[in-house]
Amino acid sequence: MRSDTTHFHCEIADRIATLSLARPERKNPLTFDSYAELRDWFRDLHYDDTVGAVVFAPNGGNFSSGGDVHDIIGPLTEMNMKELLRFTRMTGDLVKAMLNCGKPIIAAVDGVCAGAGAIIAMASDLRISTPDAKTAFLFNRVGLAGCDMGACAILPRIIGQGRAAELLYLGRSMSAEEGLAWGFFNRVVDRDRLIATAQDMAARIAAGPGFANMMTKTMLAQEWSMGLDQAIEAEAQAQAICMQGQDFHRAYHAFVGKQKPIFEGD
Amino acid sequence: MRSDTTHFHCEIADRIATLSLARPERKNPLTFDSYAELRDWFRDLHYDDTVGAVVFAPNGGNFSSGGDVHDIIGPLTEMNMKELLRFTRMTGDLVKAMLNCGKPIIAAVDGVCAGAGAIIAMASDLRISTPDAKTAFLFNRVGLAGCDMGACAILPRIIGQGRAAELLYLGRSMSAEEGLAWGFFNRVVDRDRLIATAQDMAARIAAGPGFANMMTKTMLAQEWSMGLDQAIEAEAQAQAICMQGQDFHRAYHAFVGKQKPIFEGD
Amino acid sequence: MRSDTTHFHCEIADRIATLSLARPERKNPLTFDSYAELRDWFRDLHYDDTVGAVVFAPNGGNFSSGGDVHDIIGPLTEMNMKELLRFTRMTGDLVKAMLNCGKPIIAAVDGVCAGAGAIIAMASDLRISTPDAKTAFLFNRVGLAGCDMGACAILPRIIGQGRAAELLYLGRSMSAEEGLAWGFFNRVVDRDRLIATAQDMAARIAAGPGFANMMTKTMLAQEWSMGLDQAIEAEAQAQAICMQGQDFHRAYHAFVGKQKPIFEGD
Repeated sequence: MRSDTTHFHCEIADRIATLSLARPERKNPLTFDSYAELRDWFRDLHYDDTVGAVVFAPNGGNFSSGGDVHDIIGPLTEMNMKELLRFTRMTGDLVKAMLNCGKPIIAAVDGVCAGAGAIIAMASDLRISTPDAKTAFLFNRVGLAGCDMGACAILPRIIGQGRAAELLYLGRSMSAEEGLAWGFFNRVVDRDRLIATAQDMAARIAAGPGFANMMTKTMLAQEWSMGLDQAIEAEAQAQAICMQGQDFHRAYHAFVGKQKPIFEGD
Repeated sequence: MRSDTTHFHCEIADRIATLSLARPERKNPLTFDSYAELRDWFRDLHYDDTVGAVVFAPNGGNFSSGGDVHDIIGPLTEMNMKELLRFTRMTGDLVKAMLNCGKPIIAAVDGVCAGAGAIIAMASDLRISTPDAKTAFLFNRVGLAGCDMGACAILPRIIGQGRAAELLYLGRSMSAEEGLAWGFFNRVVDRDRLIATAQDMAARIAAGPGFANMMTKTMLAQEWSMGLDQAIEAEAQAQAICMQGQDFHRAYHAFVGKQKPIFEGD
Repeated sequence: MRSDTTHFHCEIADRIATLSLARPERKNPLTFDSYAELRDWFRDLHYDDTVGAVVFAPNGGNFSSGGDVHDIIGPLTEMNMKELLRFTRMTGDLVKAMLNCGKPIIAAVDGVCAGAGAIIAMASDLRISTPDAKTAFLFNRVGLAGCDMGACAILPRIIGQGRAAELLYLGRSMSAEEGLAWGFFNRVVDRDRLIATAQDMAARIAAGPGFANMMTKTMLAQEWSMGLDQAIEAEAQAQAICMQGQDFHRAYHAFVGKQKPIFEGD
């Protein structure tokens, strides 16, 4: 998996890729270029198993301020509909690529986490924050709707329909304490432990059965709008596939031999 | 927007409509007439932008006791299926009209909030209550099913499937404290601050970008049962529409000029 | 309803069926035989109204350790795809049968509640636990995916998408305290009150309007992936059916006569 990225930082070690956005002096805004490169990076990840989990980290004490006012919002105000739709589809394609990459993503959130930055946290599988994180789906404060990059579909399923509506209509910040109580954050830890905690969780996941983890991620998205009977049949098929995997056999033999299984991801 | 309603109270000021049901001496029950007039009022609101947000308020210390036993339940026991279905569709049409009206609705709940009253609170976008509010989806206590006016679809998405099941099978009251912890209520405030808090929140929303708020409300409902990829594409289209709106341009220019944007809803 | 079951315990008294798994010395694992017999028992329950509610109880201080390592996991590692799919469909059919049986199921969870045991708790309508219950969707720890018997569809709707993802990717135990805060458990009570509390709740439900309770259960599943408008129309039809039921008439007449209604389930 490429780590020589141009518009965001990427470090890969021990099968964990740690990403962060650039330009901490401006709280790491997204740009047209970083959107596109992130989308392509996560699309490539779908085909690459040398990375087992991803940590999306802050930079300089902030996660991301979202779409850059000068680099993105200004130009958008001068685009025609064809160009606008090309942009909103590109941003949506980043979320689709994150959902479809096959590897769990852990957002490690600190400081400002706003707009498209909040969306990246939302589109991750797990979220850890510092006590000071301020997560704001602030689209209506810039005159836009809350329906950005999947927020009206995904956010209600994480924190509930009523809380999501409040955040989207008011554009106000969600505190770390609220985020933990509401299920947005899986854990809140001090700033000096944030990256280590996220990478440790990523390492535990990456040491797990990679093919099965991919199937878990696939099915969490795939069953989103299925009927219950259809979801149960879909899981019967998906799990039967996993039962022919070597990691299932490794776990069984390790258990019988009273050992800890070592998974290899096939 | 009409405020000369016959079967419920309606006051409109500063683009906020404040509604409440009549007959506080009987805890504001719904009647055939108030159902129909509410449905029509919310249907009209879809086409009217002079109101930016709605507060559904209590009257005399109670929100609503639901369908009136004498005016509604008695007659229902003597109806044939065609007549019954006409009634249940009318009540469901009230919820559909609330979901489709394009303006955020804030329920300000106090005292008794039962049956169809609880449904009106549930079908609102945001909910504030006093510490004494008792919200009861009590249909099974009158021999009916919990599937009333969308409750089996909507309530689980607000408070979770297990808690919704408990309320619907037992018909017991949910306390304000539970409602806050579970995400049914966005906030709990003392009785003397209830209306002011709800109207203040409504004012903040009404001062926001009205067209974009309408789109947020539309998409929260529209994406209810979409697949994830479809929801993301739907949001790409909806947000591109909003990016051609004047409020988006106003926000950008206000930001560049270091001013607070003044939205006009187009 | 049969209580002379072979591979699990079943006692029926006062219209409450109390089930528990066998072999407490091994923490009540599921076997091919108990899966099949449970599936058939719940399928039969669909047609039987002598039971009004079900309690799924622990045995010897544990709920269930899930699929037996020796009786199930070992044989699965030697099956071909046709045989594997026959197995995963049988386990899924147990969940389908529980969802379709028409009577509310209350899981009373204590001690170990793992794998397929956690699924049985999840597929119940309500859940009560002791403070010591450890609920683990531990599939990835045996090399499998979290998509087992509907978990990727159902668990996120109970506890939220982010918390469900954590449990499924890490396979870690959810404590009773977490389960209560997250809405997995409806209540946590001491061990010596667990069965009585569950049976009391079951008795309250069984004393309610049985036909309407069945319709609530049906619609909670039926509306799972419906659009909002379709769900509201479906409820208009379902509730109109219930309004022709005798229990609705009984409740009305009891109310008018200032008495407590006695429901008969028709």
